Amino acid sequence: MLKNLSIPDNFLGKPDKSFKKNLKRILGFLPRHYKYYQLAFVHKSASAVFNNLRINNERLEFLGDAILDSLIAEYLYEKYPDKDEGFLTQMRSKIVNRENLNLMAIKLGVGTMVISKMATDNHKSIYGDALEALVGALYLDKGYKYTRKIVLERIIQNHINLTRLLETETDFKSRMIEWAQKNKRSISFTSFEESGENSGCQIFIAHLIVGDEIFGRGSGSSKKEAEQNAARQAIQLIEG
Amino acid sequence: MLKNLSIPDNFLGKPDKSFKKNLKRILGFLPRHYKYYQLAFVHKSASAVFNNLRINNERLEFLGDAILDSLIAEYLYEKYPDKDEGFLTQMRSKIVNRENLNLMAIKLGVGTMVISKMATDNHKSIYGDALEALVGALYLDKGYKYTRKIVLERIIQNHINLTRLLETETDFKSRMIEWAQKNKRSISFTSFEESGENSGCQIFIAHLIVGDEIFGRGSGSSKKEAEQNAARQAIQLIEG
Repeated sequence: MLKNLSIPDNFLGKPDKSFKKNLKRILGFLPRHYKYYQLAFVHKSASAVFNNLRINNERLEFLGDAILDSLIAEYLYEKYPDKDEGFLTQMRSKIVNRENLNLMAIKLGVGTMVISKMATDNHKSIYGDALEALVGALYLDKGYKYTRKIVLERIIQNHINLTRLLETETDFKSRMIEWAQKNKRSISFTSFEESGENSGCQIFIAHLIVGDEIFGRGSGSSKKEAEQNAARQAIQLIEG
Repeated sequence: MLKNLSIPDNFLGKPDKSFKKNLKRILGFLPRHYKYYQLAFVHKSASAVFNNLRINNERLEFLGDAILDSLIAEYLYEKYPDKDEGFLTQMRSKIVNRENLNLMAIKLGVGTMVISKMATDNHKSIYGDALEALVGALYLDKGYKYTRKIVLERIIQNHINLTRLLETETDFKSRMIEWAQKNKRSISFTSFEESGENSGCQIFIAHLIVGDEIFGRGSGSSKKEAEQNAARQAIQLIEG
């Protein structure tokens, strides 16, 4: 039984030729322990059951999400020695936001490998989740340093255009307005300042309202930031 | 100049004896590169300026927060092979929530080392932030594997009582009710169900209202979860 997988070695069957070929195309190498990687592509809708456990990629996704976050954090920390923590946080969230992850996953070819019983067309996050799970698999198989190398070389350098991310402010608000126009929906933002009496903190809260439903909420240290965060939440809701 | 610090080696001065002693007490060893660790304790209120950059622990905190998250993720992944991702996420947030981080930092002795121009009594998060920055410093100085070892041995095993975390549901709601009674404030929750028309997602939203101010907002897949999250946000607001 492989470490940490809670399933016997042969539980997912032998990887076939096309799986190996696709995996090599993504990672640039063929691993020794396929099971980690096989599991990374099993969406929960296609869970197998073993010892009363639902076996799918969600645990690997939990792990890989954290590893990816810290790899990106380190990458940005080194890349931008003269930028403050706010900038680094913002850049990271531009990189690992749901939509960008899904896009990277599709570009990398994760899409063809996912095993799912859901129509993935409407659930593109299945791809992004599988990408995170793949990072988790890589980490368990090869450790932190090697995972860093692969993530930097195969994902960050090939599929993240930092210049573009820097230039184009992730303008969720504009995107929500475009979406509303396209879908003929009315859209509005409400925002207000809020202060916690005991904390001295001043924050802005914004709601994004479509029709008469609240589609997103956000907070921030300015009205603009709160609205962007509300719009971002709305986009996540819409794009699943 | 040390890697990634954007300041000359001697910028923060030589660490004195008590700094070294305290650091050794926390980490269990004396490092070679003190500057990383010295910087980890500089709160932004005590920023120094170099090359027009404000030099403080915020960048290290950004890095350390991510590293700590992934170390805890891995620890829980291994510790609970038969638990699902929801459980792992919940346990992690119990461990790395603001309040618990502050508490761990104080127990570890971070409090005496922080350099701040703010009264830290009302801003205990200064301690938790410094602890995260310390993890970032450790990572830059010694790498991932060693950081994992230190964090496991010195922080997780000494200062995290998993059994207690498991047993006692982090009942933010009860704690907010206690707080309100103690401070003679009126408190109420409002919650409603919300559905994103295009997503098919059903979520609950809860607001925690103290007097006539919204102190916290939360969402979740049940009313209970939403209220807990709203109460948690309110506790963060109150405890800074």
